[in-house]
Amino acid sequence: MTTSPALALIPDTQSAPDNRHLTIAHVGIRRLSYPLCISILPQPQHTVGEWDMAVTLPADKKGTHMSRFVAWLDRLTQEGELPLSGALLGKKFADMLALLDAKNGRVEVEFPFFIRKRAPVSGVTSLLDYRGGWTAESVQGQTTVWTRVRVPVKSLCPCSKEISNYGAHNQRSHIHIEAELLEDVSWHTLVRFAEEAASSELWPMLKRADEKWVTEQAYENPKFVEDLVRDVALGLQQDKRIGRYRVEVENFESIHNHSAYAVIESGAA
Amino acid sequence: MTTSPALALIPDTQSAPDNRHLTIAHVGIRRLSYPLCISILPQPQHTVGEWDMAVTLPADKKGTHMSRFVAWLDRLTQEGELPLSGALLGKKFADMLALLDAKNGRVEVEFPFFIRKRAPVSGVTSLLDYRGGWTAESVQGQTTVWTRVRVPVKSLCPCSKEISNYGAHNQRSHIHIEAELLEDVSWHTLVRFAEEAASSELWPMLKRADEKWVTEQAYENPKFVEDLVRDVALGLQQDKRIGRYRVEVENFESIHNHSAYAVIESGAA
Amino acid sequence: MTTSPALALIPDTQSAPDNRHLTIAHVGIRRLSYPLCISILPQPQHTVGEWDMAVTLPADKKGTHMSRFVAWLDRLTQEGELPLSGALLGKKFADMLALLDAKNGRVEVEFPFFIRKRAPVSGVTSLLDYRGGWTAESVQGQTTVWTRVRVPVKSLCPCSKEISNYGAHNQRSHIHIEAELLEDVSWHTLVRFAEEAASSELWPMLKRADEKWVTEQAYENPKFVEDLVRDVALGLQQDKRIGRYRVEVENFESIHNHSAYAVIESGAA
Amino acid sequence: MTTSPALALIPDTQSAPDNRHLTIAHVGIRRLSYPLCISILPQPQHTVGEWDMAVTLPADKKGTHMSRFVAWLDRLTQEGELPLSGALLGKKFADMLALLDAKNGRVEVEFPFFIRKRAPVSGVTSLLDYRGGWTAESVQGQTTVWTRVRVPVKSLCPCSKEISNYGAHNQRSHIHIEAELLEDVSWHTLVRFAEEAASSELWPMLKRADEKWVTEQAYENPKFVEDLVRDVALGLQQDKRIGRYRVEVENFESIHNHSAYAVIESGAA
Repeated sequence: MTTSPALALIPDTQSAPDNRHLTIAHVGIRRLSYPLCISILPQPQHTVGEWDMAVTLPADKKGTHMSRFVAWLDRLTQEGELPLSGALLGKKFADMLALLDAKNGRVEVEFPFFIRKRAPVSGVTSLLDYRGGWTAESVQGQTTVWTRVRVPVKSLCPCSKEISNYGAHNQRSHIHIEAELLEDVSWHTLVRFAEEAASSELWPMLKRADEKWVTEQAYENPKFVEDLVRDVALGLQQDKRIGRYRVEVENFESIHNHSAYAVIESGAA
Repeated sequence: MTTSPALALIPDTQSAPDNRHLTIAHVGIRRLSYPLCISILPQPQHTVGEWDMAVTLPADKKGTHMSRFVAWLDRLTQEGELPLSGALLGKKFADMLALLDAKNGRVEVEFPFFIRKRAPVSGVTSLLDYRGGWTAESVQGQTTVWTRVRVPVKSLCPCSKEISNYGAHNQRSHIHIEAELLEDVSWHTLVRFAEEAASSELWPMLKRADEKWVTEQAYENPKFVEDLVRDVALGLQQDKRIGRYRVEVENFESIHNHSAYAVIESGAA
Repeated sequence: MTTSPALALIPDTQSAPDNRHLTIAHVGIRRLSYPLCISILPQPQHTVGEWDMAVTLPADKKGTHMSRFVAWLDRLTQEGELPLSGALLGKKFADMLALLDAKNGRVEVEFPFFIRKRAPVSGVTSLLDYRGGWTAESVQGQTTVWTRVRVPVKSLCPCSKEISNYGAHNQRSHIHIEAELLEDVSWHTLVRFAEEAASSELWPMLKRADEKWVTEQAYENPKFVEDLVRDVALGLQQDKRIGRYRVEVENFESIHNHSAYAVIESGAA
Repeated sequence: MTTSPALALIPDTQSAPDNRHLTIAHVGIRRLSYPLCISILPQPQHTVGEWDMAVTLPADKKGTHMSRFVAWLDRLTQEGELPLSGALLGKKFADMLALLDAKNGRVEVEFPFFIRKRAPVSGVTSLLDYRGGWTAESVQGQTTVWTRVRVPVKSLCPCSKEISNYGAHNQRSHIHIEAELLEDVSWHTLVRFAEEAASSELWPMLKRADEKWVTEQAYENPKFVEDLVRDVALGLQQDKRIGRYRVEVENFESIHNHSAYAVIESGAA
């Protein structure tokens, strides 16, 4: 868009200098809902993202131009483009910085996505919802892209099983993985790091024979929140396509009205 | 899916009789995330719904079959089907009741959707997010379908403008319309009932000339929450395609840390 | 507060007449956070409520006076007053209507509260959090007060137990009771309607011996969501201090990423 | 509590060794609702906190003892104790680590609190709600305590005011301050850092004369989100009782359906 002569007469308050000598680490917009298309093999999947976009503002600049974030995002997500991936976002992120005339910045997005799953015994299929996301960040001219996924699973308490004459308390858990991908890794693969570590994975549609299978599978496979977080971390650690990572597991305890949780970050002693 | 002989041997606990003599008004599943496709003219739009599906359970029946709700929904939202509309949902809803062997029931869904809007002066375009939804309900064999939309707008306080030497407090407001459609009405049209009643409508991307326009437009068009709710209701009342309705407006007051709100329901004195 | 001469000169825009001929069912303020004191025997408990207060506005009146809701609430919750109860709220509610010059209206509040519980075997004690609330509503000069409580419990699936060789899936559930109290009923008593119907009640602090007890108790006491809602309803029905009621149970299913739920309303066939 | 002989026979699964060689950065409980008492001068104020408590688990330990977090918290918040402050929490935090047999850990809490405010012209008083919190964290034996506060204010856009013939868009904003207190600073004082930087502060109860004052005050005092965040940071920087800090401002834009935001962290260039 060219600035028309009339528009040019409107004062541009944000471009004035500032003398408070304070760098703003992040300035931008957030909670912007915008559709996007991702790749769930073998085909693209349309979903809705919540976006957060910001730049670092040097101490001598008064303000940024908020509308340019939307302009960049609108172009990024237009029909006809390729499905978005972490790698593509990292590449296009440079255009955002250029458009905002900024050296450093960050874009974050989170969105639901779906994988069609086959129930373990009956074979009926249905779509399980996950949450995915990316963070692209540039600090001192160095850009990093993180991929995130939240996977719902079942956890069954080993202590409860061990000490009780029958039964064992179990509950829904959410496993959050955040990973720096050195090579592309599909959403299916990321999700499996979590599902394979759980007492049992979940399905939206289960017939009675499946429910029996899930119940017994979880009982045979008890895991503390500490086991879950370590088993997911072990899996990530052994995969050469994955660099730094962070795993967080939250158990919505069925014997309490609060959660148990655990976090592992790569690189800790 | 045919029930295999092996599956048939698994006891069907939910089908046993019950002698507590208590009808269950609604029993089913909720907070199920599942994708769907709707029609935002001139083309289909993919989005993600949160679904709530239930049936009424007679006093002599012990339980319902939860997995069948998912089976029905999965078929309803499969690729290749038409975009979902309130009318189509109302029609397919009968299949859900049949599958659940129920006379009465209810299905509710809510989803984000987007309309491309052109800024009032600069003409730049971007996608504004709204929330849509339907409720299909069958009571005594009579099915009703309600269409819902939530529209974000701007409200500017007439009292503040009137009493102040300059300025007027204004804020974001959400207008919720719930309507029984006697004929099909597009999402664009429903949204306009709200946007035309507001002090100003909103856009995600505004250039400076647009911002000037929105500011002045709102200042020239002050509305109390009572005015907003009445003006939207007046519009709905005069449209013959719309039967019963409910309008709710919430102003996220900029001079308080709480909201002002107002509700009109058709058919009240 | 007396209106000073200076204030009297400021135009009172809300008091002007209106000619759109539309009654507003509810107009007021919501999401107002304000502290209150309730009675958890044997002593008062301080907590924080989220308040929603509205009146019905006749078709010929332009607006209501929002600040008066806060004035009424501030007086209601001042230090030195008695702990608030449903009965007291119902009585003071008349003052709100008078202050707003309204015939009909509604006030709703919701707040966390705590009961000290003793673990079943070890005897250690801790505070479990519940949510309580009231709705006082006046329609055609008739005032009704509803008391609400949300109780977290454990549910264990009878089908899963029956069909599996070992174990049974279980999860946290929330039981919501809404009741018209014909006589005063303590929060302890209301909570017990829910806890006694559950597979097991919950505690924040459990030692290993307690965890064994809860696990086995739940396994011996399996309940579908349909059983839970009916058993709570049966209890309420047999208590003469309770008039109309509504029970809702939501199971945060541990084998799915969605909930199962059921609702019973008194007075249904 | 002494462990009885019978309890001692129950296997203690969490105390077994672990050979996955992975340190867990944080393991504990979260979303635990528990009451507490804080000091809002001149008197104590009862409120409800959401607590998150964790320890670091060395690579060779299998698990932690979750119930001990609740035991520690229950003792901390018992009646008869002093109101909780950041300093007191930092001190008692050592007991938590000792009870959990841990070197490093973290406790976080967030709670609503209220300050009685006098309207600027009419002088009527009412309680405005804020959110406070603390984080106490021990890393390598070094304990740090952070104090947090969220303050709702009004922001008015300088650009909108400058370019428009009349009016200016304004909205509610939330200012989040997180500060390391070198000396004790009252909640009133922390709140004032935010309120004094805003276009206008907020009150729950405003009469017409007050509304006029707030409207004009905001119009005379326009601030970008960049100005807000810098002005709050300047204030914190000049106060010797405050060490490191982080300020975040979010404007719930009234011309968009998304937010503008900005963050300053002390120590940045």
